[in-house]
Amino acid sequence: MDRKELVEQIRQKKSYLCVGLDTDPAKIPAHLHQEEDPIFAFNKAIIDATLPHCVAYKINTAFYEAQGLKGWAALEKTVNYIPDTHFKIADAKRGDIGNTSTQYAIAFLKQLPFDAITIAPYMGEDSVKPFLQFEGKWAIVLGLTSNPGAHDFELKKLASGERLYEQVIKTVASWGTPENLMFVVGATRADEFTNLRAIAPDHFFLVPGVGAQGGSLSEISQKAMNSDIGLLVNSSRDIIFASPKEDFATVAGLKAKTYAEEMATFIL
Amino acid sequence: MDRKELVEQIRQKKSYLCVGLDTDPAKIPAHLHQEEDPIFAFNKAIIDATLPHCVAYKINTAFYEAQGLKGWAALEKTVNYIPDTHFKIADAKRGDIGNTSTQYAIAFLKQLPFDAITIAPYMGEDSVKPFLQFEGKWAIVLGLTSNPGAHDFELKKLASGERLYEQVIKTVASWGTPENLMFVVGATRADEFTNLRAIAPDHFFLVPGVGAQGGSLSEISQKAMNSDIGLLVNSSRDIIFASPKEDFATVAGLKAKTYAEEMATFIL
Repeated sequence: MDRKELVEQIRQKKSYLCVGLDTDPAKIPAHLHQEEDPIFAFNKAIIDATLPHCVAYKINTAFYEAQGLKGWAALEKTVNYIPDTHFKIADAKRGDIGNTSTQYAIAFLKQLPFDAITIAPYMGEDSVKPFLQFEGKWAIVLGLTSNPGAHDFELKKLASGERLYEQVIKTVASWGTPENLMFVVGATRADEFTNLRAIAPDHFFLVPGVGAQGGSLSEISQKAMNSDIGLLVNSSRDIIFASPKEDFATVAGLKAKTYAEEMATFIL
Repeated sequence: MDRKELVEQIRQKKSYLCVGLDTDPAKIPAHLHQEEDPIFAFNKAIIDATLPHCVAYKINTAFYEAQGLKGWAALEKTVNYIPDTHFKIADAKRGDIGNTSTQYAIAFLKQLPFDAITIAPYMGEDSVKPFLQFEGKWAIVLGLTSNPGAHDFELKKLASGERLYEQVIKTVASWGTPENLMFVVGATRADEFTNLRAIAPDHFFLVPGVGAQGGSLSEISQKAMNSDIGLLVNSSRDIIFASPKEDFATVAGLKAKTYAEEMATFIL
């Protein structure tokens, strides 16, 4: 999905919600464990219920890899089930030397129908560029993350006076365009959002950390929206595990609707 | 495998060679494509031929993920085929917020019998620590990598005067011990090896980049060996694709033997 289509989807729905499918089998409702593929059964019901309220889904690969082969099968079924009206993100945090990154790019952007994959920037240019070679596909590179560990390196000051994350965003931005690059910016970093938008005025930000991690949707939206909206705000646990019972999908749908309704108030 | 066993294996064999199974189906000999699982058939033959000369195998997950489900199946079969005398590394470059890193740790260190997994440090402490919670298992964290992109961030100077990779190694070292933490240090960074060993005198270094990427085994060994050897030097393409013909395994075995023989000359 290219930027034009993504922005159209957002404007049409008045929503920039991304639903995170961090599907932990230990947390899915008990009755689903009778299904042949409980993970996919759960995801399918969540997708059906949340489709009208979101524009993107983010599959957190770790939860699927932890289930081995059957997890990988559930991941494939899930991404194939999401309709093409929705932006599909592999939240995989990959990145390696060039020939290896090329293989990761093939895995997610060519063999599987993901629109985007999250990337760790530590190894630099040749680890990121292979993800930028696919028409209409995106690399979403870690900028400033939502977790406490962001203080260890991302927020460290460089000799140039900039902090590492600022340098990362500026440098990575020069390797691609706002048409094939986004940045991950944690919702818990609201005090940095004005600065982040100044550094990367045109790029989309994928913003996890709303909900379970405590970020404020209103503050992020007010500080970081640009003329194309420029935000995909993700919520995972807060939506998909909103109810542990048989009504889980209905409750997830309502929760997604509540997010979307709040988002609509920020879209002019 | 704990450190004592690993050091014993190295001393017994007089080898600190790690064979990298970057198994690209496009590069495996044509006759293997008749096999039910060509990737596993290739790996099995390579393992059989190189076992006497190496102490570790490193499976580069990207090449398996690029093949989808059948790739993941080949990865599982391969790691299960490697005997317990050999140290098994998932070269996966994972790392995410705490609850997600825990899932990656389960995927590779618990569900699969890997001894170690490579980790990207960008997201800091809570992204690394979940990999340090398994008895006899290891996190191998990126320090200074072999690729050109290392100049973009890893070699950047911080306000403290240190370069980022130095700060990363020092900080990460404080989260674990030389019994559960190693660092990835590229063989092409020979000019940094004396400094690297001064920063982390006791840790093992996993050193890729010998062979196809051009690093010097002799220089690394002379500069960075410690009293427990402290090195696992990896070669992938240079060994496994040494011959494109039916004799590929024999030639790989001879190539591994050549590496091991050179290594023996550095072990006192």
